[in-house]
Amino acid sequence: VGVKVGIVGSTGYAGEFLIRILARHPEAELVCVCSAHAAGRDAAAVLPALKGLVDVTLCGEDVDHLARTCDVVFTAKKSVESMQYAPVLLDAGVKVIDIGGEFRLKDPAAYEKWYGNTHTCPELLPEAVYGLTELHRDALRSARLAANPGCYPTGAILGLAPLMEEMRGHVRAVTICASSGVSGAGRTPSKEGRNLFVSCFNNHAAYGVGTHKHTPEIEQELGFPVTFVPQLASMDRGILSVMAIHLEEGYVPPRDPGAVLAERYAGEPFIRVYERVGDVCAAGPRGTNFCDLGAVFVERTGVVCVVSALDNLLKGASGQAVQNMNVMCGFDECTGLEGFLG
Amino acid sequence: VGVKVGIVGSTGYAGEFLIRILARHPEAELVCVCSAHAAGRDAAAVLPALKGLVDVTLCGEDVDHLARTCDVVFTAKKSVESMQYAPVLLDAGVKVIDIGGEFRLKDPAAYEKWYGNTHTCPELLPEAVYGLTELHRDALRSARLAANPGCYPTGAILGLAPLMEEMRGHVRAVTICASSGVSGAGRTPSKEGRNLFVSCFNNHAAYGVGTHKHTPEIEQELGFPVTFVPQLASMDRGILSVMAIHLEEGYVPPRDPGAVLAERYAGEPFIRVYERVGDVCAAGPRGTNFCDLGAVFVERTGVVCVVSALDNLLKGASGQAVQNMNVMCGFDECTGLEGFLG
Amino acid sequence: VGVKVGIVGSTGYAGEFLIRILARHPEAELVCVCSAHAAGRDAAAVLPALKGLVDVTLCGEDVDHLARTCDVVFTAKKSVESMQYAPVLLDAGVKVIDIGGEFRLKDPAAYEKWYGNTHTCPELLPEAVYGLTELHRDALRSARLAANPGCYPTGAILGLAPLMEEMRGHVRAVTICASSGVSGAGRTPSKEGRNLFVSCFNNHAAYGVGTHKHTPEIEQELGFPVTFVPQLASMDRGILSVMAIHLEEGYVPPRDPGAVLAERYAGEPFIRVYERVGDVCAAGPRGTNFCDLGAVFVERTGVVCVVSALDNLLKGASGQAVQNMNVMCGFDECTGLEGFLG
Amino acid sequence: VGVKVGIVGSTGYAGEFLIRILARHPEAELVCVCSAHAAGRDAAAVLPALKGLVDVTLCGEDVDHLARTCDVVFTAKKSVESMQYAPVLLDAGVKVIDIGGEFRLKDPAAYEKWYGNTHTCPELLPEAVYGLTELHRDALRSARLAANPGCYPTGAILGLAPLMEEMRGHVRAVTICASSGVSGAGRTPSKEGRNLFVSCFNNHAAYGVGTHKHTPEIEQELGFPVTFVPQLASMDRGILSVMAIHLEEGYVPPRDPGAVLAERYAGEPFIRVYERVGDVCAAGPRGTNFCDLGAVFVERTGVVCVVSALDNLLKGASGQAVQNMNVMCGFDECTGLEGFLG
Repeated sequence: VGVKVGIVGSTGYAGEFLIRILARHPEAELVCVCSAHAAGRDAAAVLPALKGLVDVTLCGEDVDHLARTCDVVFTAKKSVESMQYAPVLLDAGVKVIDIGGEFRLKDPAAYEKWYGNTHTCPELLPEAVYGLTELHRDALRSARLAANPGCYPTGAILGLAPLMEEMRGHVRAVTICASSGVSGAGRTPSKEGRNLFVSCFNNHAAYGVGTHKHTPEIEQELGFPVTFVPQLASMDRGILSVMAIHLEEGYVPPRDPGAVLAERYAGEPFIRVYERVGDVCAAGPRGTNFCDLGAVFVERTGVVCVVSALDNLLKGASGQAVQNMNVMCGFDECTGLEGFLG
Repeated sequence: VGVKVGIVGSTGYAGEFLIRILARHPEAELVCVCSAHAAGRDAAAVLPALKGLVDVTLCGEDVDHLARTCDVVFTAKKSVESMQYAPVLLDAGVKVIDIGGEFRLKDPAAYEKWYGNTHTCPELLPEAVYGLTELHRDALRSARLAANPGCYPTGAILGLAPLMEEMRGHVRAVTICASSGVSGAGRTPSKEGRNLFVSCFNNHAAYGVGTHKHTPEIEQELGFPVTFVPQLASMDRGILSVMAIHLEEGYVPPRDPGAVLAERYAGEPFIRVYERVGDVCAAGPRGTNFCDLGAVFVERTGVVCVVSALDNLLKGASGQAVQNMNVMCGFDECTGLEGFLG
Repeated sequence: VGVKVGIVGSTGYAGEFLIRILARHPEAELVCVCSAHAAGRDAAAVLPALKGLVDVTLCGEDVDHLARTCDVVFTAKKSVESMQYAPVLLDAGVKVIDIGGEFRLKDPAAYEKWYGNTHTCPELLPEAVYGLTELHRDALRSARLAANPGCYPTGAILGLAPLMEEMRGHVRAVTICASSGVSGAGRTPSKEGRNLFVSCFNNHAAYGVGTHKHTPEIEQELGFPVTFVPQLASMDRGILSVMAIHLEEGYVPPRDPGAVLAERYAGEPFIRVYERVGDVCAAGPRGTNFCDLGAVFVERTGVVCVVSALDNLLKGASGQAVQNMNVMCGFDECTGLEGFLG
Repeated sequence: VGVKVGIVGSTGYAGEFLIRILARHPEAELVCVCSAHAAGRDAAAVLPALKGLVDVTLCGEDVDHLARTCDVVFTAKKSVESMQYAPVLLDAGVKVIDIGGEFRLKDPAAYEKWYGNTHTCPELLPEAVYGLTELHRDALRSARLAANPGCYPTGAILGLAPLMEEMRGHVRAVTICASSGVSGAGRTPSKEGRNLFVSCFNNHAAYGVGTHKHTPEIEQELGFPVTFVPQLASMDRGILSVMAIHLEEGYVPPRDPGAVLAERYAGEPFIRVYERVGDVCAAGPRGTNFCDLGAVFVERTGVVCVVSALDNLLKGASGQAVQNMNVMCGFDECTGLEGFLG
């Protein structure tokens, strides 16, 4: 076996999918699957769907134990706690892949502004690699610390980046309307009942309009301001993002935007570019590590419409995290990620 | 009783909701509820949920019979047939409210371009009143022919029109991302399976990007080009529209956009303006004739985000059609439309 | 106006639907809509969908104030608190309609066994009328205290009672499989996440097999033991109950079971009996106070299958509670309950 | 590679899942994936979600070509056509696994009665092995023709058979209430709109009460009459079956029914027995070839309640079909079926 792996925050959705993937990953050995609330229990006792699929006993959250026993640790807690784990683990020579938002923004002031917290280890930000694998593969190969992208930014940036580059200097504005499944809101019941069944089922609503904390990482990667409107849809998993790139008046893109995407991502194992944007749908990549893309130029209004879809728990979280581990550890990038992952 | 009413196309979703509303409308008598396929049967035999709620026998589709017996006829067929009904009915002095798209566009060439049909009675287009009640109430009072707006345009225009007017001359571009329940695709199974359960459930996809035929009526009413991206959501009814009004660089709207909407629609019985855009949701107005609105200015990017919600079968179709009937016939506008309509 | 009405527990689902119905009820004046958490706020500020539909300010929970100001009080709290309210209110001459389970069982020992609580006012149990209106209408006319039935028992008993009576002495066993929308689990997030979106969506599971506390009230009303298997379905509202009445070997019911139901409920305003059991569906009565019924005899196995459907928040809770109020106060039984209720 | 495989009826749901599984099956080579409507096209062009997962070109339906090129053929058409394929293929030495209902019943008269068709090759019925792998593994090893069980029967029989045997002579009656996802109704739009989104979403209804054609194969395997009530649930995939075994009065099962199931299926790779019946849920085995089981004895009423769950397209159709192929061809039974299958 290649690496000994630890997971912090194992019983959230991201943690659960890390277990699902890594339990079948031929190069990973799960040595330390931590849960603050369920230490000592079988993972399948807490998450009954895992019965017969994984054989994992949960352990307590102990950073020193992780530092001693693991080669790679995934931190998957919705909180600032990853800022406590990362420095200790890195000091011990452990590679860290953080699924939270703590290491995504290069500018600690931006972190404070958008997240409302003070960063306690800003000295790590310069070396943290933004883990959008398709864009930062080379940097990831030698990274000690990967900041796994947010679910929304993954779909938005993968769709927008090649086209923004192609049309550089001619873009006036970018809007992103993204509809997400409710697992994006996490497993902990929200105070306002936002992830209750009756609140979300057969419903659709925007939230955090213009203020969602995934906004700055999209802007950081694109080098361009975006208006981002996340929406909660009546789905369990999946994000469909509709992006509008408003072009300068009279500017006509030199190439079909779908062809630009297809060329840019030719050979990428986890990107599918569809000719018909209508074939890109939230359900399409569900259960896989794919990000699906399509684009069309609306000549009447001078707008390039880009549509992307992914499974927010896989390419949007745990799948991409393992993809990054594969790159960081020198494994084949697709190891453990082919086909269906649950 | 005030008026004798006919319905053409009674067993589609729009027709069903016309029956639901009109069967309890104190000023309407349903004299001629036509169905090509179920003439002679009780409506409740065809639509079991109506049992005990309506007592209506369906009759055949006979334009002469409608012309002789009705004061008002609703044409609710997804087809060009309303162009055959309208001239005959109007000649006989019957008021016509068309729920299809045939009389919405003033320009017959635009109709041909977007709908792919030749208009067979373009002479009626000048007098047809676009039945967005809140915008054209005065013209509707004396109208013989009302073109009931599309479901998407109703929510989009109600949200955009007052703000476009307020910011006239400072708007650079408008995009509309609208997520619709599947009843918008009609009751007839589509060839591509687009309204099948398994295709739509737990899914979300854009379609008709930049080419949807509701686009031109939005542009006609706003006097401004729009990029319109309709999306099919995992809901049965309801549309949530997210609109981005891109403003000139540096331009700051003089007033809060939510306040503009609240002022414009003060006193409107079927418009609810919410202070928090997050309170506007597809489920909110379901079963009612309300259109819910909210708006916020995203200063960072110079974009006004407007969110609207409505029930596509009520304010987006049959509810608004009855609202128009009330205005055209001189009844209280709210008659038969208060509270919940099914 | 006929009666001054109070509601305890206003912001749960049952309370919300009481507000929706009673705000439009011509004989009721909402004088005291209590909420422990939101006193002083508009109901529509807490429940945004009520905006424009009701004009109600919430007040604190004060039993003495309720006793002084109300003619009728609905207690709609999931707890034992109704046992504290009822004696005080009844002493003050206020009629009480309890939507909880505290007054449904005649036998205080059965209450303790199934509910796990000690009954603190067992002296009220003899006079409490089980508020299944169609079965106990006469007793309700003079009742001071009505125990509104559970959502499951309403559908089960209405379907079973006439057939059990018809086949008295020939029934060997009764099983009830009922699939409920998630609103039945209440608005408070459950510790095990049972009413979270991701847990319930696209899922179906049995719970409380053989132990659900609605079991004894069904047995009390039928005078027969039943095996009751409640199930949580991927719906927001509605219950579909499938009941199997196992008959003695060789016994053939003298009449068609559907005809028995139709005859028994002829003239009942809120019961719809369908000839085809397949027409009885959870969505059919949604938004109304109807209970839909159908039945068929499966000769091969000697089983009468009965299917019932209702909206768990209306006929299964708040709608029936208002129906009971109408009876108890001498109003027309249908007042405020016709058509669609939200 | 072990065997050359053909599929007839490739673009229905069962065919699609056969493609998904077999395209990654290390012992199978897909040589002939037939589609009457899409011959010559890539499977991924017809089923866009398969892009990047399978590389299969569809071919026409030609029984002689199948006979010449295949070692094993799956017939997955909803029709009587498999009766035309099977004799020709078997004559040519090809193993046949039929996913339709044509070869499940030993008695051709029962087939005619329940299916309404005349059987055209009754001479094959004696040798057809009912492909419930866990019950007929030995016979399957040497079978030329396997009749893959229906989706409902798979879950019902696996749950009931060991308990019926354990309690043999003491069972008075068996009822089965099963709630199925809508993919069970197939991809072809039904005339009555039964698989339309709006008809099924947020709904639940029984159908075919006492007359469903899956009934006789359950009775054939159990040797006992059952009352079977299938129900359509608001899910895309999955079946949850609730079975009630009514025992003789006073009879108490000697062992806990959950323990009986656990013992019977110890070592079975695709059966999971849960201690808590509430952990058995439709979503649990989704995407896998598992059938989940749980059982409890309700002493009060003398009923054993058994709950089973499976994915109707996997263990209930294509997964089990491949499991049968593995047994029939001498491969490890789990080949290609471990983990998640889509």
